[in-house]
Parts: sequence; C-alpha cells; structure tokens
Amino acid sequence: MTEHTSKQYDAELESLRTRVLQMGGLVENQIVSAIEGLGAPDTNIFKEVIRREQEVNQIELEIDELCNHILARRQPAAVDLRSVIVAIKMIRDLERIGDEAEKVARMGMMIADAGKHFVPKVDLHRIASNAIAMLRKVLDSYARVNAVSAAEVVKADIEVDDEFKAILRQLITFMMEDPRTISRSIEILFIAKAIERIGDHSKNMSEHVVYMVKGRDVRHQGPDVVAQEASGN
Amino acid sequence: MTEHTSKQYDAELESLRTRVLQMGGLVENQIVSAIEGLGAPDTNIFKEVIRREQEVNQIELEIDELCNHILARRQPAAVDLRSVIVAIKMIRDLERIGDEAEKVARMGMMIADAGKHFVPKVDLHRIASNAIAMLRKVLDSYARVNAVSAAEVVKADIEVDDEFKAILRQLITFMMEDPRTISRSIEILFIAKAIERIGDHSKNMSEHVVYMVKGRDVRHQGPDVVAQEASGN
Repeated sequence: MTEHTSKQYDAELESLRTRVLQMGGLVENQIVSAIEGLGAPDTNIFKEVIRREQEVNQIELEIDELCNHILARRQPAAVDLRSVIVAIKMIRDLERIGDEAEKVARMGMMIADAGKHFVPKVDLHRIASNAIAMLRKVLDSYARVNAVSAAEVVKADIEVDDEFKAILRQLITFMMEDPRTISRSIEILFIAKAIERIGDHSKNMSEHVVYMVKGRDVRHQGPDVVAQEASGN
Repeated sequence: MTEHTSKQYDAELESLRTRVLQMGGLVENQIVSAIEGLGAPDTNIFKEVIRREQEVNQIELEIDELCNHILARRQPAAVDLRSVIVAIKMIRDLERIGDEAEKVARMGMMIADAGKHFVPKVDLHRIASNAIAMLRKVLDSYARVNAVSAAEVVKADIEVDDEFKAILRQLITFMMEDPRTISRSIEILFIAKAIERIGDHSKNMSEHVVYMVKGRDVRHQGPDVVAQEASGN
C-alpha cells in the first residue's frame, strides 16, 4: 500500500467516526427536543422532530454506504475492521433511537390534540434525563475510544428499566382510580416505553464500543462481566 | 486465489447462509411456542421458551464471529460482501425476535400466575399468525434469494400494524368498562406489542434480502417502491 492510499484510508476511517458522532448528535437533539415538547405550550417542537426524522434516516443510509465502500475497497483488518463493523451496528441503534424520539413526538401531539383533561400527572423527567445521559455517555465513550466508560452505560440501563416499571405501576393506579384517564395513560405508557428503549439501544451501543476497543463480544452478559472485560487487557 | 481456497471460501459462505436459516428456524419455533403457550393448560411451554432464549443469543454470537472471520480472511466483494453484511444485520433482527418471543412467554407466565380472572377476551390469534407468516416468508425469501417475495413482506407489515391498533382500541374499551381488567389488559397489550414488533423486524429483514439480491438499499421507502426495486433489474 502506498503512503498516499494509506492516508486516504485513514481519512475514510476518520470520516466514518466523525459521521457516526454527527448522527449521534442529531439523534440526541431529537430525543431532547421531543422530551422538551412534552412541557411546551404548543406542538411546534414535535412537528420539527417528526420532520427531522427523515434526516436521521438519510444519514444512516449514507454511513452504511461509506462502510460498504471501506469494506469493499480497503479490506480492513483487526481494529479497523472492528471499527467498521461497530459503525454498521451503532447506526442501526441510533436510527432506532431516532424512531423512538419520533414516537414520543407523535404521542405528545396526540395528547396535546386531545386537550389536557384527564392527563395523569406522571413525572417522565427522571427516566428521560437518565436515558439521555446514557446516550451522551456512550457517544462520548465512542469518541474517546473508552471501554471503561462504555461499560458504565450497561450498568445504568438497570436503573432506567426500574424507573419504567415504577411509571407503569403509577399509571395502572391512575387508571384504576379514574378510568377517564385510561386513553391518556396508555399514550404516556408508550412515551415511557420509548424512553426505556432509548436506554436499551444506548446499552447495545456501549457493548459495541467495548468490542471495538477490546475485541471482545460482551453481549448477553451482566454489567459486572462487561465492566471486567472493559477494564482488562 | 487457488481453487482450494476458493472452495473453502464458498463453503464458508454457504455455511453462513445455513446458520442464518438455522437461527431463523429456532427463532420461529420460539415465537410459535410462546403463542401456543397462551392457550395451554400450564406454563411449561413458556419456561421452555425462556430457557431456549440463551441458545438464540449464543447462535447470534457464533454467526457474528463467522462473519468477522469471512470479512477479515476472505475480503469479500460485490454480492459476497453484501451477503455477509446482510447476515450481520439479519441476525440482529432475529435475535430481537427471540427477545420478543421471550417477552410474550414472560407476560404469559404473569397472566397465568395471576389466575384467569379479569382477563379480557382479546383475539391475538390473527395478528400472531400474520406476524409469524411474515417471518416465515422472509426466511424463505432469503433461502431462495428471492427479492420479489421479500418485498411482499414489507407490504404485509401494514396489516399487522393495523391489527395492533385494533387490539389497542379493544383493550381500552375493556379497561373502561371494567377497571378490574386493567392490569391484565396492560400485559396483553405488551404481548400484542411484542407480536407487532416481530412484524417490524421481519420487514427489516425483507429489506435486507432485497439489498442482498438487488444491491439496492430500500429502507425508509414505501412498500410500492420496494416492490418496484425488487422486481427491477
């Protein structure tokens, strides 16, 4: 390989990283906006989230093409191959997070359109900020190629799952006490579920980051095993 | 490349296809069993589904390793490269379908444990058989390298989504009429949602099959466009 080719190849790998992070930033904005919309006086934020969903999809296709290009032309090996494989997997999770943000926006629109009557007072703020923190942290771990920090995201998912269960119990209580809240409660349940899914996808991505850095596949294992693998040599 | 190497390479690609189909068969059994369990007199089927979930996860990891091996050693190009990339993506969807089957089994266990009081009479049979039909068809399209048949799966997803919406409306009616059914209704809602997700994953896989056969990325487009691309040259 000539030095020129190698430089181009490096530039392609660097551009892949940059684009994944760019997509991550966009998706993070989407979910932050969708959650913000839940407390907003009008539905403009939701409309913007729904509109930008197309953009997320488009970027996913472009990055996928870049990965195919690198695989076909550069025949990457070792850590470079892992980076490309991880990029392919991460952008699928990011795209799904984008989908979940869109779902939150659509549910938010439905609740707003139906009027604010019978909306059970459920605090989604904590679960949302925890899920968003997971997403930020995994993107940061990816940017800094840091497996230890990625492994912490796997652990954080337990809390988000517990928060979802607590919200579910709360909603069931509201529905039993006042059946007029049932429709709105189900919509809020779907919003909480979408947020919980963002935690799941962030967890998936953190497992990919550990694989990229350490070359070990840590899926389907407990957070403790993941942490151990991430800090080992 | 010597003929010997090429034969080994062919055997690896063939083995990859076989293993993806094997995983598909296992996952199909999982969801069929989980649905069967909903009408069974005891919870043994559910326990079996939950136990076998580990197996699905294990096969996913093995196939992923095989893909990495082929990418690193064989440096596949054109249709071979597409087959490997598609395998990487398909097994993720298959693993998720396995997760959904496990969720159905766990919800089924909860309903059975709580006793059959206040279980709303909702017919899940139709949505389940449609989602399973989608899964079977996409696996068959993959086995026969048939893009046209895969594209039909994309279309079938619309019906499954509509069936889910109908079940949701029905459940809300039950809950409003008799609030004692609320907890059980939510569990059935999660089961219906899991089945609907199986439709989504089957749709994803069918888009991958079209890409494998035609080399065109048809995600995020309507079923008509997909059908057109699948039948074009």
